[in-house]
Amino acid sequence: MSTSASFAPLQNDTFLRACLRQATDHTPVWLMRQAGRYLPEYRATRAKAGSFMGLATNTDYATEVTLQPLERYPLDAAILFSDILTVPDAMGLGLSFALGEGPKFAHPVRDEAAVAKLAVPDMDKLRYVFDAVTSIRKALNGRVPLIGFSGSPWTLSCYMVEGAGSDDYRLVKTMLYSRPDLMHRMLAVNADAVATYLNAQILAGAQAVMIFDSWGGVLADGAFQQFSLAYTARVLAQVKKEHNGVRIPRIVFTKGGGLWLSEMGQLDCDVLGLDWTVNLGAARKLVGGQPGGPGKALQGNIDPNVLFAGPEQIKTEVHKVLDSFGTPLRAPQNDANATGPTHIFNLGHGISQHTPPENVAVLVDAVHAYSAQQRK
Amino acid sequence: MSTSASFAPLQNDTFLRACLRQATDHTPVWLMRQAGRYLPEYRATRAKAGSFMGLATNTDYATEVTLQPLERYPLDAAILFSDILTVPDAMGLGLSFALGEGPKFAHPVRDEAAVAKLAVPDMDKLRYVFDAVTSIRKALNGRVPLIGFSGSPWTLSCYMVEGAGSDDYRLVKTMLYSRPDLMHRMLAVNADAVATYLNAQILAGAQAVMIFDSWGGVLADGAFQQFSLAYTARVLAQVKKEHNGVRIPRIVFTKGGGLWLSEMGQLDCDVLGLDWTVNLGAARKLVGGQPGGPGKALQGNIDPNVLFAGPEQIKTEVHKVLDSFGTPLRAPQNDANATGPTHIFNLGHGISQHTPPENVAVLVDAVHAYSAQQRK
Repeated sequence: MSTSASFAPLQNDTFLRACLRQATDHTPVWLMRQAGRYLPEYRATRAKAGSFMGLATNTDYATEVTLQPLERYPLDAAILFSDILTVPDAMGLGLSFALGEGPKFAHPVRDEAAVAKLAVPDMDKLRYVFDAVTSIRKALNGRVPLIGFSGSPWTLSCYMVEGAGSDDYRLVKTMLYSRPDLMHRMLAVNADAVATYLNAQILAGAQAVMIFDSWGGVLADGAFQQFSLAYTARVLAQVKKEHNGVRIPRIVFTKGGGLWLSEMGQLDCDVLGLDWTVNLGAARKLVGGQPGGPGKALQGNIDPNVLFAGPEQIKTEVHKVLDSFGTPLRAPQNDANATGPTHIFNLGHGISQHTPPENVAVLVDAVHAYSAQQRK
Repeated sequence: MSTSASFAPLQNDTFLRACLRQATDHTPVWLMRQAGRYLPEYRATRAKAGSFMGLATNTDYATEVTLQPLERYPLDAAILFSDILTVPDAMGLGLSFALGEGPKFAHPVRDEAAVAKLAVPDMDKLRYVFDAVTSIRKALNGRVPLIGFSGSPWTLSCYMVEGAGSDDYRLVKTMLYSRPDLMHRMLAVNADAVATYLNAQILAGAQAVMIFDSWGGVLADGAFQQFSLAYTARVLAQVKKEHNGVRIPRIVFTKGGGLWLSEMGQLDCDVLGLDWTVNLGAARKLVGGQPGGPGKALQGNIDPNVLFAGPEQIKTEVHKVLDSFGTPLRAPQNDANATGPTHIFNLGHGISQHTPPENVAVLVDAVHAYSAQQRK
C-alpha cells in the first residue's frame, strides 16, 4: 500500500480552512463530478482508456482527468477521480459500466447466502485507487488540497442489492423491511470496509475525505436513522481525524437528507453537504454553530441546472446562494485559527454531462468575486 | 358538462370527516394508485381497453377499475381513475402511453412560440373525465366518497417541457432559470386550467379534490416557493370550497416537500399529503393544529415498499406510522363537529405494480384495527 511521501507544501488552503470553520478571504468552491463528461478533454482521455473502469484503474489517466478541471477553473480543491462502487467491486460483485448506462454488478447480493459471504475486501484489490491518490497529490504539487471519497454503507447496499441504479429501490427495501438482520449485517461489513478504504486513501495522500450518501434520502424517516445514519457514524468512528499531525476534515453528504439535518449535526464530522432543497440560512442556524462554539461547516448547494442558464442568471443564482448562507466568519484579529460558521460552495449534486464548460467559469468566478465582497 | 344529479347518501364519511379535522372511530385509509396494475382484475380490464388512455377515456372501464380495489379491501375512499396529464393533453400536446413506459407528449412546450400558444383548454375535451366522475359516483352508491384530482401546475409543466418523465429535469429547469417569464406564463395558464378542471369534477360529483405536486420536490429552495407553491395557491384560490352546501375538502401533496411543510401550512387547503421521509409527529406539531384551532389534516405516509415484507412486518410498520402521528382527535361529548388534529392513512407515493394484492389487505386491516384501539 502507498504511504504518504513528502508532498509539496499547500499553496491554497482555503478549502481545508473552511472545512475546519476557520476564516478565509473568499468562499472556496469545487464541484461534485468536476472531472467529468462535460469536459471535452475528459471525453478524449476516456476514449483513450476505452472504458470508465479503464480510466479509473489507470494511475496516469486518473491523474490526468482529476487535474483537467483545475487547468480551466480556479477551483479550490481537487477530488480523486474514481467511482463510489470500487469497494463492492473489490468484494467480488463484478462492477461494469456499459457505455451511456449506469453501473452494473454481475453478482448482486440478494439472499442470506450472498450476505453471509460478504467481507471487508483485501485493500490490495483497491491499490489502483491509493496509487491514483498518491499520483494526483504529487501532480497537484500543492496547488489545492485533494479530497478522497467513498459511497456510504447504505448507498453501497442500494447498488449491491439492486445490482444497478433503481427508481424505486424495491429490492433493497424489500430486504430492509423483510430481513433487517441481513441488511444490518451487510451495512456493518460495508461500514468497516469504507472506513478501511478511507484510511488507506488518507495514508496515500488524501487531505480530506467525503462520504457520499447519495441514496440516504430515499429512506423513510426512522429507517434513515437506523440503516443509513448509524452506519455513517460507524464509518466516522474508525476514520482517522489527522495524519502526520495534520487535521483531515471529514465531509458527509446525504442527498435528500435535509429533513434530518439536526440529527446529522450530531455526527462526528466537520462538514455537512447539502442539496439545493435546503435553505442554507436555515441550515446554518440549525447546525452551523456560533463563533467559537461547536458546529459544522456547510457545503453546497446550487442546483446544477442553473449552469444551463445565461451568465447573468448564473451570477444572480450564485449570489442568492451566498446571500442565503449570509456573511461567513471573518478573521478575528490576532487569532487566525478562531472558528465560526463557514461555507464551501458546491453544487447540490454532480454536474450534468450536458453543462457548457464556459458556464462553469462564470460560476466559479462569481463565487470568488461576490464572496470576497461579502467579507468587506 | 355533467352536473351533479342526486346521488345516494354517503354511508362511510370517515374520510371526509378526517379531511375536515373531525373525529372518527378509526383512521380512514386509501392508497394512491389503488386502482392499478398490481390487481389482476385491473390488468384484465386494461387488456380489454387496449391502452391506458383507452381505459381512462371509456366511462364504463374507468368506473370498473375505480371500484375494483373497493371490492377487495374496506378502503375509506375511492379516487377517480385517470391520469394527471389529461389537462395538457386537452391543450393539444398529444399524450400517449407506450406499453411498459411512462407518458409521452408528441408536442412538448420548449420555446416562446409554444408557450404563447398555451391556453386553458375547452373543458368539453375533458368531458370523458367528468362523465367518469358522475358514473363512478353513481356506481359507488354512497359506499365511500369519491376523490377527484389533478396534477399541480408545476408538475404539469415538468411533463409539458420535458415531453416525458425525466431524471434531472434539465429542460424544464433550463427554461425556469433562463426564461422565468415563459415559465411563469405557462404556470399561470396551467393553474387556471387546473382550477377549471377541478371545479368541473366537483360539479360532476367529486366529493374531495387532490392536487398532486409530484415533482415539486425537485425544485431548489426559493424556486419551489415561486414556481410551485405560488401556483398551487393560485389553483386553490379558484377551486370551490363547497358544492350544494356540502364542504369539498382540498388536499395538496408535494412529494419531497417535507422541508417546506410550514410554508405549505399557509395554503388555503384542508389536508396536506406527506411522503415517507417526513416524521408524522413532527408534521403534526408544525401544521396539525390544536383542538378547536386552525390546522391541516395530514395524509400519508408509509413507504410503499413495506408492502413487499411479510404480514407481521407490515403490521409493525403500520403501527409505527400510526404511533408516529399519535392519538388523533377523539370525539368530544356533545359536539360531533369539533375539530382537531386528524390523520388519513395512505402510502407516501403510489403503490408499486409489483405489490402482492394480499399484502394490501393486511395493511388496510391493520390500519383499521390499530387506529380503533388507539382511540380507546
